[in-house]
Amino acid sequence: MNIPKTSFPRLVIIGGGFAGIALAKGLKNKEIQVVLLDKHNYHTFQPLLYQVATGGLEPDSIAFPLRKIIKSIPNFFFRLTKVLNIDAENNEIHSTIGKLKYDYLVIATGSKTNYFGNTFIERYSMAMKNVPQSLNLRSLIIENFEEALLTSNFEVRNALMNFVIVGGGPTGVELAGALAEMKKAILPKDYPDLDIRQMQINIVEGSDRLLNSMSEKASVKAEDFLVELGVQIWKNVNITNYDGFLVSTNKDLSFNSSTVVWAAGVKGAPVNGLSEGCVVERVNRIQVDEFNCVKGYKNIFAVGDVSNMVTSKFPKGLPMMAQPAIQEGTQLAKNIIAVLNNKPMKPFKYKDKGSMATIGRNKAVVDLDIWKFQGFFAWFVWMFVHLISLIGFRNKAVVFFNWVYNYIWFDRETRLIIRPFKNKNKESF
Amino acid sequence: MNIPKTSFPRLVIIGGGFAGIALAKGLKNKEIQVVLLDKHNYHTFQPLLYQVATGGLEPDSIAFPLRKIIKSIPNFFFRLTKVLNIDAENNEIHSTIGKLKYDYLVIATGSKTNYFGNTFIERYSMAMKNVPQSLNLRSLIIENFEEALLTSNFEVRNALMNFVIVGGGPTGVELAGALAEMKKAILPKDYPDLDIRQMQINIVEGSDRLLNSMSEKASVKAEDFLVELGVQIWKNVNITNYDGFLVSTNKDLSFNSSTVVWAAGVKGAPVNGLSEGCVVERVNRIQVDEFNCVKGYKNIFAVGDVSNMVTSKFPKGLPMMAQPAIQEGTQLAKNIIAVLNNKPMKPFKYKDKGSMATIGRNKAVVDLDIWKFQGFFAWFVWMFVHLISLIGFRNKAVVFFNWVYNYIWFDRETRLIIRPFKNKNKESF
Repeated sequence: MNIPKTSFPRLVIIGGGFAGIALAKGLKNKEIQVVLLDKHNYHTFQPLLYQVATGGLEPDSIAFPLRKIIKSIPNFFFRLTKVLNIDAENNEIHSTIGKLKYDYLVIATGSKTNYFGNTFIERYSMAMKNVPQSLNLRSLIIENFEEALLTSNFEVRNALMNFVIVGGGPTGVELAGALAEMKKAILPKDYPDLDIRQMQINIVEGSDRLLNSMSEKASVKAEDFLVELGVQIWKNVNITNYDGFLVSTNKDLSFNSSTVVWAAGVKGAPVNGLSEGCVVERVNRIQVDEFNCVKGYKNIFAVGDVSNMVTSKFPKGLPMMAQPAIQEGTQLAKNIIAVLNNKPMKPFKYKDKGSMATIGRNKAVVDLDIWKFQGFFAWFVWMFVHLISLIGFRNKAVVFFNWVYNYIWFDRETRLIIRPFKNKNKESF
Repeated sequence: MNIPKTSFPRLVIIGGGFAGIALAKGLKNKEIQVVLLDKHNYHTFQPLLYQVATGGLEPDSIAFPLRKIIKSIPNFFFRLTKVLNIDAENNEIHSTIGKLKYDYLVIATGSKTNYFGNTFIERYSMAMKNVPQSLNLRSLIIENFEEALLTSNFEVRNALMNFVIVGGGPTGVELAGALAEMKKAILPKDYPDLDIRQMQINIVEGSDRLLNSMSEKASVKAEDFLVELGVQIWKNVNITNYDGFLVSTNKDLSFNSSTVVWAAGVKGAPVNGLSEGCVVERVNRIQVDEFNCVKGYKNIFAVGDVSNMVTSKFPKGLPMMAQPAIQEGTQLAKNIIAVLNNKPMKPFKYKDKGSMATIGRNKAVVDLDIWKFQGFFAWFVWMFVHLISLIGFRNKAVVFFNWVYNYIWFDRETRLIIRPFKNKNKESF
């Protein structure tokens, strides 16, 4: 990889997600060369992917060009590539576009969908971890309704209009709420010749409550909101298989569904080449110490979802969410600057700013440390926090405008099948 | 196709472009059943596709859901399908989702890229007639620069940064201008380690001037603007072949280029099944009389690009542009209402509202009937006309905001490779 060699040490960051970006921003104008590698040329604001999937937002408004983030910073480089493996012995990474030496390496590769080994579910269900996947889901949802119009087979039509969301975490809850609002406000008008009451939205959750990383109160209220919107909630149920039509569970319960969205778990997405024992098998995350330093290495760090930092409050590792990723990235930048100045690093301390989930218009739940609230104000706070967290003024403005528009008009105008998913050949029409 | 049979006559419109939409809107709340068929579930505002291709606009802001246009109109139906052929003897169309009887049929299928039989050019060049094609071009442009960074082969790098636009009509001119502005304001900052001065933008035009459907003055000024922006203009040159690298011409001129955009011609995209002699071979357009009625038929009409209406001013047929399409659609709606009321149809009269093209910021050319002007005011008029012509308030607002943002900040933030074009496998990273 043709990155100029300078007198500054070189830090290579793999991944331009929340953690990688926070780290890069923290190293602005320091005596260090930063090379950011990513397989996409944009940063994805993952918390809003579900709104892309349900036609509420343009994909382009939650993505931000990585080159724009780093372009004004001297000594910063970006390369569009996939890292194949790390050769730690030689302080080198191998990628699809060649090798690169590093002085410091930061793995910020995030997480991927965890199917827990079920290849059938992996093949037939939809994930929602990146922009193309969300666009595929958007296409599929609308294609289903177009197809439902055409069939006279009652069973097939029901399956086309039956949505099964696996996993009752924030992603599952938010997607279910958005689908329920489409059912209420959009679909009956778009498909007057289809009985939209037949549409079903199911959330299947393995534990005994939705949002089980949040407070009891948040769970109860979220369930109330969803039931109010007509979502069916199945708790203590695990999906065991899906063949593209039949969804099987470990209970006396099954569904016929053309659309299963798998939001039941994520696992780390580490790169190859770290020594054995670095990666915690169960979650596929890289063990790091309180400085985000990878166990057994001195100049390799991991931040964000892919890293597994164990604290007394989080013995299984910090949650795989934006907040720890951003804080770790920011802190690691400070620590690397400290190292450059021969000062000691400071241990990372996670400051839990709380968590939140939205269910629909005027409906959200927010857990802060000492204050937990639900309803309209929570919904307002949710929007505000997401809006200010989006990177870029243009994105903020476009998302804000779309939200106001959708709120006033009960609309979702990006219900477009730009690239058909079901029958990809249709594209060549 | 399961469209309910009513006592009203049934009009089937094939195609939801400018003509089809204008026609449908004109038939609101009349005693007629309207069935709109399209292979996409959205209307495309084609005049702005080039801004999608160059990262200036989100694709979703120039597309509008067809179901939203017709949803509030009783007796209107939409079906997502491709029409395979017409069985005029039985008043029936055959489509990918079955057959449908009609009382009146309107062919509004528009146009497609005309490669004049050169299959190599068709295989290797890029077209820009619909949203997916524009997104492919957007991906390719950025992928080229990412790749140019990596190669040490001078010839390859030059080809990656050499853009050849074939055809000096409005599409070619506008695309060239947009690329030139990327070269000026975006790319040097995004790729500081690449010598962007090496980037070349060529327009190759077969006739002796650009914009040859406009006034001499507009052509001269457009050429001046383009030269000022660093675009190379080649006139009286025809491209004879392209193999993915080498562009050959009929002159002592050739280019090495990874990106050839074919904007050198369109032809009608009629449906199969019309009797021989209906379709003008040279342009593939359907001959219609002054009522847009297809020659030899009483209840089949054609409107927009696909129709070939000959007038004294346009002996080769009306131009294939939005204005004639909209006007024909509107007039045909009135004529069909007249027929329903046993009144005579009125012949179509094309009102030439003028034409325009934009080259870049503050640079456009406008030809009105008696007034031809260029420069800042023309650019302002161009924007205003395009903005009010966009369907939907949301689209207007989002496009307007992007234009203001891009103007102030010299930016184009949707330079995203959402779906890689060059190496499609990269998508599965």
